[in-house]
Amino acid sequence: MQRVVVALGGNALLRRGEEDTAEEMRRSARFAAERIADIAAAGWEVVVTHGNGPQVGRILLQQELAKDEVAPMPLDVCVAESQGQIGYLLQVAIGDVFFERDMERPVVAVVTLARVRPDDPAFSHPTKPVGPYYDEEEARRLERELGYSMAPSPHGGWRRVVPSPVLYSIVEAPVIERMIGEGAIVIAAGGGGVPVVEDGPRLVGREGVVDKDYASAVLARDVRASVLLVLSDVKGVYEGYGTEGARVMATLTPNRAERLLADGEFGEGSMSPKVRSAIEFVRSGGERAVIAALEDGLVALEGRAGTTIAEAG
Amino acid sequence: MQRVVVALGGNALLRRGEEDTAEEMRRSARFAAERIADIAAAGWEVVVTHGNGPQVGRILLQQELAKDEVAPMPLDVCVAESQGQIGYLLQVAIGDVFFERDMERPVVAVVTLARVRPDDPAFSHPTKPVGPYYDEEEARRLERELGYSMAPSPHGGWRRVVPSPVLYSIVEAPVIERMIGEGAIVIAAGGGGVPVVEDGPRLVGREGVVDKDYASAVLARDVRASVLLVLSDVKGVYEGYGTEGARVMATLTPNRAERLLADGEFGEGSMSPKVRSAIEFVRSGGERAVIAALEDGLVALEGRAGTTIAEAG
Repeated sequence: MQRVVVALGGNALLRRGEEDTAEEMRRSARFAAERIADIAAAGWEVVVTHGNGPQVGRILLQQELAKDEVAPMPLDVCVAESQGQIGYLLQVAIGDVFFERDMERPVVAVVTLARVRPDDPAFSHPTKPVGPYYDEEEARRLERELGYSMAPSPHGGWRRVVPSPVLYSIVEAPVIERMIGEGAIVIAAGGGGVPVVEDGPRLVGREGVVDKDYASAVLARDVRASVLLVLSDVKGVYEGYGTEGARVMATLTPNRAERLLADGEFGEGSMSPKVRSAIEFVRSGGERAVIAALEDGLVALEGRAGTTIAEAG
Repeated sequence: MQRVVVALGGNALLRRGEEDTAEEMRRSARFAAERIADIAAAGWEVVVTHGNGPQVGRILLQQELAKDEVAPMPLDVCVAESQGQIGYLLQVAIGDVFFERDMERPVVAVVTLARVRPDDPAFSHPTKPVGPYYDEEEARRLERELGYSMAPSPHGGWRRVVPSPVLYSIVEAPVIERMIGEGAIVIAAGGGGVPVVEDGPRLVGREGVVDKDYASAVLARDVRASVLLVLSDVKGVYEGYGTEGARVMATLTPNRAERLLADGEFGEGSMSPKVRSAIEFVRSGGERAVIAALEDGLVALEGRAGTTIAEAG
């Protein structure tokens, strides 16, 4: 049986233009769940990963507004909270769709930790904005009083910036591999996983955000998936994006993808990390990676939509 | 190999007199983790369950204080959030202690759902207080505008009350059983599990709170544990509690425990649900249940501290 890691973009639980409520999240989770069920029904073992940007942003804003009465939790704890929240909504949605289709499969969401290096240069150069917007005076106060790194946002106002270290393994990968081997659909690596460093014999949570697509690539490698399927709201990797002749490339070798990355073809938006993760997965021994739109799910996995990144063969 | 479900009381993550901060939670989690490691080192397969009262209370208060800017999530989603938060802290603490003791065992925290009946009488008689305190005027407004049930608190002020339905099974029990059979330490059923009802083919989350000790008993039955170990900050089941001659009973049969319950011997505090859960577990085929202090961990599991509930034999 073939095995796939399906990485759901932020839009899988909160589509553009939707309200940030539990009802909208349940509706979006259901849409994603139907795509997952299509894939499982076609005979694939499935691990589902997901983003957590809007959700952890909401938790951080709640903490900020309540801070005079409730001690805020550090970011590692907030990421774990968001894994519980999103994992629950996805688990119920996937379980429902499976049940309706008479496909009884256990669905389980696990708290996931991502090992990062304590000397990762990201720790001295925090760049990833998280949480609410502040005015400059408040931002300066947070720098002084809490030691936060703050940076002006291109959208106006100031935001906290945290390190985005590169993970090298997923702590729970061996357990996850066993669970999928036994037929479970596993939801894992939410938000890229909680970043932890090894401090002697101990694992210590760090305030930071791991790239979720890259975490999905590392997990896919560690659970020996043959395919990494990255689903979001874009149709695939475009050639000439933003020009009149823009078109989705059906296939791409890791070498060619690397050249396009180096040429700045994908900008610094959300496509670059997806392409980097796809290259990483294929280079680490994965058969292929596919970058596609959520609605194309199984069709993309079968190579009939989106962009397949694989060695020419 | 024998199997135990260790139910950690609320004090396992937030001991009396401690501040409600991540640092204190990590310290308390470590204390509990050492007890868990003692038990695993003695050759037991272990599932860890835990309460979430203070933590979900904190999340609800944050939601309340931030509600003008962030849409609050319903209680089922908040319970799942608290499972992520506490599961993470326990997982890291347990993993650390194991590593220090050269006991490599995977540790995994899973989002857990508790099946309850849609016609459970609790749904028309909400009694369990959750979240922040309000004055009467605000309480009345919440009743009108959000349909909450509100009740005056014995401690002054008003609080929201939610149903406390009785679970009949844990959705993830089969997966959990497989994971522990393969040597993992599994953290599950946090806060009693997220209550869900079956609505045709679908599972629907309900706003309510499941008793965590009872959920632990049902999980212990479903994963075929031989022992349910309920650890909190009381030494065991007292005879003559509150009198000068008060003493911990070393053993108790389910029949005797039931008579003492019926006689109101344990009041309506936290001991009654523990005793009820112990009876339930032994009646459903469990070998024995032990109610003891957290610090007595393994000693209690071996029957040398706390109160053992078992058929006379």
